[in-house]
Amino acid sequence: MSGAVSAADAALALIKPAVRAQTAYTLDAPRAPRKLNQNESPFDAPEAVKQAVIRAMRDEPWNRYPPFTPTALLERLAARHGWLASGVLVGNGSNELIQATLAVTVGEGTPVVTPAPTFSLYRLLTAVYGGRHVPVPLTADFQFDLDALVQAARDTRAPLVVVNSPNNPTGTPLPDGAVERLLAETAALIVLDEAYQDFGGPTAVPLLKDEPRLVVLRTFSKAMSLAGLRFGYALAHPAVAAEIAKARLPYNVNRVTLAAAHAALDAADVLAECVRAVRRTRDALVGRLARIPGVRAFPSAANFVLIRCETHPAAEVFRRLVEDQGILVRDVSGAAGLEDCLRITAGTDDDVDAVVRALQAILA
Amino acid sequence: MSGAVSAADAALALIKPAVRAQTAYTLDAPRAPRKLNQNESPFDAPEAVKQAVIRAMRDEPWNRYPPFTPTALLERLAARHGWLASGVLVGNGSNELIQATLAVTVGEGTPVVTPAPTFSLYRLLTAVYGGRHVPVPLTADFQFDLDALVQAARDTRAPLVVVNSPNNPTGTPLPDGAVERLLAETAALIVLDEAYQDFGGPTAVPLLKDEPRLVVLRTFSKAMSLAGLRFGYALAHPAVAAEIAKARLPYNVNRVTLAAAHAALDAADVLAECVRAVRRTRDALVGRLARIPGVRAFPSAANFVLIRCETHPAAEVFRRLVEDQGILVRDVSGAAGLEDCLRITAGTDDDVDAVVRALQAILA
Repeated sequence: MSGAVSAADAALALIKPAVRAQTAYTLDAPRAPRKLNQNESPFDAPEAVKQAVIRAMRDEPWNRYPPFTPTALLERLAARHGWLASGVLVGNGSNELIQATLAVTVGEGTPVVTPAPTFSLYRLLTAVYGGRHVPVPLTADFQFDLDALVQAARDTRAPLVVVNSPNNPTGTPLPDGAVERLLAETAALIVLDEAYQDFGGPTAVPLLKDEPRLVVLRTFSKAMSLAGLRFGYALAHPAVAAEIAKARLPYNVNRVTLAAAHAALDAADVLAECVRAVRRTRDALVGRLARIPGVRAFPSAANFVLIRCETHPAAEVFRRLVEDQGILVRDVSGAAGLEDCLRITAGTDDDVDAVVRALQAILA
Repeated sequence: MSGAVSAADAALALIKPAVRAQTAYTLDAPRAPRKLNQNESPFDAPEAVKQAVIRAMRDEPWNRYPPFTPTALLERLAARHGWLASGVLVGNGSNELIQATLAVTVGEGTPVVTPAPTFSLYRLLTAVYGGRHVPVPLTADFQFDLDALVQAARDTRAPLVVVNSPNNPTGTPLPDGAVERLLAETAALIVLDEAYQDFGGPTAVPLLKDEPRLVVLRTFSKAMSLAGLRFGYALAHPAVAAEIAKARLPYNVNRVTLAAAHAALDAADVLAECVRAVRRTRDALVGRLARIPGVRAFPSAANFVLIRCETHPAAEVFRRLVEDQGILVRDVSGAAGLEDCLRITAGTDDDVDAVVRALQAILA
């Protein structure tokens, strides 16, 4: 690559400065026997789901594009939520629908209001599209500051407010009535990312019928045990959905994932039992972590628990958990407002025992 | 939905005007026994590929996200092209990498030069990101006008030139030396979409080692018989790839598709034979169509053939093909420069016989 340095610089100069200024979304995850770092379900997809998908794959023409509009699936998802099929958009994970929603609303300098800390993708994609992220800090105990959210949206005239409820990585749900208030007191499109709503907190879905400014995102990556297959969807007013669809790629959900989404809906009862088990584990985890000296455990409505390490640096606790105990959690302590914090996925009862014992040993 | 009309208008007002002005990418495809409308391989994925993927899926944890970086696959793709693994980005189809490349380069008013007519997604996504599409007409017989492409890129100081070679829907390949010229005579990032390059025309891949301003896109949806599973990739200088990756979603390629990509690489010999068969069919199709009175068939280096209906309206020919003959082709006659044109995928020998007989009957 002779002359590669200056030639590479010339190439990089063609990338938007706002993009170059961003740090990429990364996951630095050593291997560990106990994986509690990505808020996945601890339960693999039910055998009935796997078998149904494998049967479908045997018969499907792999050389043919998936259907342009997967009508039957849109209708089932709509029925699941008492909504309209024309107001459902499916995606390669709900992230794709976050991306599409931001793409059709955010341009040069567009303010995008979100609580902070929250899922980092909102900030990253806002920057990619040239927008201006307006973070509104959570309160000291990680509750949403609704007054400040409303104020920020009004002050900046933001066309978009994105709220993750329950919030990643804090576990905080929006209180009842909060979405109504955001809709009533701002002029923004309110995007509710309900990736973790199956585990707790209110859902905004019933508001859709009266509120075209509401977009609700759901995923099969958590409660439905399908993180490996990538499936999510958005619920919105059909006219808004049609606009968001313009930024979504054609054939974005492949044939296998479509089959898996159907099979997961067929297995709703089994999966609901898995969710109840995770909620119990989550509650046990919060309760037991709270009794460990040196740990502050925050209440959570999601399938994970945020802790603050009060006596040891979080990075050291993280390292000793993985190296000495074989437990991988998420070190979120580098994010503003999350100093000394780790995020621990609520796995099985056995995972709870292991993580509690490990933290007791490390912090003793 | 009381008051829904004005409430919906208020929601739509939050969508960017440039997006609202766009027509969505759509596919209006009636069902037909013979499907020659999407440039898919006429051959399903080899049985060995299907079996390998099904075996892999039995063992994979569906509840776990795919690997953040699919290292082994990146290395195999790099080896396939004599390139660096750090300069390979995988995607949910190559469309996702077109999208990401545009997202990191295109902002408010950014000029994006492409030949026209071409794949419509470049124009649509440029508009979504607030850019200005600068179409450079092909010549009357659908050849690339290199002088005009260079001139347009220079006049507009476009940071991006996107060329599909062979070009969809015309089948035209860039001539030898054309990419070198675009690189030498413009300052733009040159994005070469080589979705159809397996079927003919030169590849720009060997230029990568000296040219950080080059991005080459490849797909497994055509020659590799995997349109239903969605897999594509980009090859670029590692520093440029790292920037494009910022606009790509984490975990964008699911576990099944990763397994399928590996299996397809394992089956390279069988798939190469399928490609040779399609090239023969394509050549037969061009030759036989050219001899039908009322049809002008354009030369093609891809797996499809563009025809102009010289005696009947294309819409009528399209309708009679599907309704009377059960053959679905693509009616592209609505696009500027493609008046009276239909695009026909080169399928099997039997498909060629059927489409030739059908057109003879319709145009007689």
